[in-house]
Amino acid sequence: MAEHKVVVVGGGFGGLSLVHGLRAAPVDITLVDRRNHHLFQPLLYQVATTVLATSEIAWPIRLLYRERKEVTTVLDEVLGVDRQARTVRLKSGRQLAYDTLVLATGARHAYFGRDEWEGVAPGLKTLEDATTIRRRILLAFEKAEIAEKTAEMDALLTFAIIGAGPTGVELAGMIAELANTVLPPEFRKIDTTRTRVLLLEAGPRILPAFTESLSAYAKRALEKLGVDVRLGQPVTAITEEGVTIGETFIPCRTVIWAAGVQASPAAQWVNAAADRAGRAHVKPDLTIEGDDNIFIIGDTALVLGEDGKPVPGIAPAAKQQGSYVAKVIKARLAGDPTVSPFRYRHQGSLATIGKRAAVIDFGRIKLTGAIAWWIWGLAHIYFLIGTRSRLAVAWSWLWIYLSGQHSARLITQKETLKDNS
Amino acid sequence: MAEHKVVVVGGGFGGLSLVHGLRAAPVDITLVDRRNHHLFQPLLYQVATTVLATSEIAWPIRLLYRERKEVTTVLDEVLGVDRQARTVRLKSGRQLAYDTLVLATGARHAYFGRDEWEGVAPGLKTLEDATTIRRRILLAFEKAEIAEKTAEMDALLTFAIIGAGPTGVELAGMIAELANTVLPPEFRKIDTTRTRVLLLEAGPRILPAFTESLSAYAKRALEKLGVDVRLGQPVTAITEEGVTIGETFIPCRTVIWAAGVQASPAAQWVNAAADRAGRAHVKPDLTIEGDDNIFIIGDTALVLGEDGKPVPGIAPAAKQQGSYVAKVIKARLAGDPTVSPFRYRHQGSLATIGKRAAVIDFGRIKLTGAIAWWIWGLAHIYFLIGTRSRLAVAWSWLWIYLSGQHSARLITQKETLKDNS
Repeated sequence: MAEHKVVVVGGGFGGLSLVHGLRAAPVDITLVDRRNHHLFQPLLYQVATTVLATSEIAWPIRLLYRERKEVTTVLDEVLGVDRQARTVRLKSGRQLAYDTLVLATGARHAYFGRDEWEGVAPGLKTLEDATTIRRRILLAFEKAEIAEKTAEMDALLTFAIIGAGPTGVELAGMIAELANTVLPPEFRKIDTTRTRVLLLEAGPRILPAFTESLSAYAKRALEKLGVDVRLGQPVTAITEEGVTIGETFIPCRTVIWAAGVQASPAAQWVNAAADRAGRAHVKPDLTIEGDDNIFIIGDTALVLGEDGKPVPGIAPAAKQQGSYVAKVIKARLAGDPTVSPFRYRHQGSLATIGKRAAVIDFGRIKLTGAIAWWIWGLAHIYFLIGTRSRLAVAWSWLWIYLSGQHSARLITQKETLKDNS
Repeated sequence: MAEHKVVVVGGGFGGLSLVHGLRAAPVDITLVDRRNHHLFQPLLYQVATTVLATSEIAWPIRLLYRERKEVTTVLDEVLGVDRQARTVRLKSGRQLAYDTLVLATGARHAYFGRDEWEGVAPGLKTLEDATTIRRRILLAFEKAEIAEKTAEMDALLTFAIIGAGPTGVELAGMIAELANTVLPPEFRKIDTTRTRVLLLEAGPRILPAFTESLSAYAKRALEKLGVDVRLGQPVTAITEEGVTIGETFIPCRTVIWAAGVQASPAAQWVNAAADRAGRAHVKPDLTIEGDDNIFIIGDTALVLGEDGKPVPGIAPAAKQQGSYVAKVIKARLAGDPTVSPFRYRHQGSLATIGKRAAVIDFGRIKLTGAIAWWIWGLAHIYFLIGTRSRLAVAWSWLWIYLSGQHSARLITQKETLKDNS
């Protein structure tokens, strides 16, 4: 008898946790991703802000499965799914046959119909996004140092982050730290401590997934770092010259988008119903309506929690869904298809503010300040993959803690300096 | 009295060694580079072959001079020099006034009039060159894994390196190691040990800067790793389909250029005479004919050794020239302009072959094999800048030595997979 063929699309947290859950199961797994690496997204903002190097938070997917001979890793892109024929159509022209298909293709940042903002306000989802943002931040300081007009210098030293979820808060805090503590001794003309970091949020508070008291603490902690937090003020325009909040124009050369995401087109591939953000509606067992052989998990699925609200698009949720689907597949293969519906267990919310503070919401237990920061750091090192990465990241953080210097400060990729006339 | 203004263009080995030599001198230094980082080029091939990460061999230039308040670092590009007005014209539109100008702008790879080869056969001089080559090497294996025709798979598993100086030899050795020892357990369809690495050299032997016995040893060591070394066979064509040697066409999807360099346009900026490779003729004190205030050093200068032959374009030569010019400037400021001419001391030639062997030519002492490899490694760690980098590179090498796994194996930058039809 041929082995049961599982095709997994997406090597993020959901896909990896599924493959992990299927070890020793009588299945043949093909994992397709258009990138060759798994990315530890929770630390991506640290690459964008010069704390960590790219290879410290990314692993070649096939390296992770070198010992799992039943796992075949394929670098390719999905173009569509033929549900009748049970095949996945790939960009290389190949068709992959499946018995069970799991789509875990995540989400990209979205501009709510203002796609023209993408060029001026990059978001943060891939390694290239992170090195692009890193380049823009560092180039702004470099250009300010050689700017001849004060107005130009001020605009170059103004950074706007749009959206105050964890990514926005973490970026704002780290840019402020960079300007206040890392860069000052290195510039001769500009005073980098005069940098203005704006955190712009349309809603009434930052970190809306946390309790109000933690939001308020995080806002005060950001303001202590010099971040200018503006609440309830939607951005109405973004250009190369600056951002407009309501009617007010603020000259600003670096804008970063952390405000919204759009699911991958997984729902379209399989003709499933989706919400406005493109997330596929799934049944309580995470399969799609009318096809028990197709599961959709992670940020590209709209999974409802016990409270009837959507499960958040965070790594632990995707991991739990991956493990759950592995259990369902194994139960089916064992002839016992009665697995109870997926239940999301929220383990807590974490976010850092700069280099010394964090907020942690474990439900009953809430932590702030330095103790929260240490727990945040240890938790993230624990969740990294492999001894080498854990040691490398721990070492990078320890070095920065002791020396105050960030070393992953490379301006790479091609971009000519624009004339600063 | 205003301080003596020294403008240094280029933050490579020559420029840095000059700035180092001028510490405590009564000068005001402006260091201009179009990149924000100094690059440790001797290890660049290790980034291209997935051994080291980008930030392990590059340092933000201004970080190096944070304590030197008399040094101003400027990220900008030189467009020209006005020798009458003693100013340097920059791309940003600014003019920098100098009393002494030092040009240390290095070289790029050159295609001997076949510029159309650049797109298909990238060279290795910058960090982006290294990540481009890394991407192409890794993508070739990925595409081979999903190729449907045997001929296509074979072409994808054929790598040609053109030019057998140290860079070509080191690249060939590491690609062979990657294919023979790192990648085999990770692929399911292809056998990466069937990879063909061609080292193509137009001259009669590899490593022509070494003695003949060391060249012969290196050739045998490469052949032991499976590298196909072809001597005396100039490449006559390179296309996306393959390379042509004489009349023989070899299908091959990855070609790397390590055959020649062209100096930066420094000689043109100052109207100095130059040789065919663009290197400026300099006087024995490294100034240019007719202008004692302009020095040209490093790979962009044609400096003659005591034997009348050009000093090689290697890091130690550039460093010696930087130190020498610092001495000349300090002597002039002290009112003693009689410094003896520059004298190059050749300290030795080193090259590695894969992960276990190297050749070292210290003149009277010649070393090969594992002992040479250890000396090569320790010497390179010693010459890195700063404790952090030394520890990071030592740790990366130790990890690879113990685990056999390369972790800096990211395919980054945008390139869509081509259809493998």
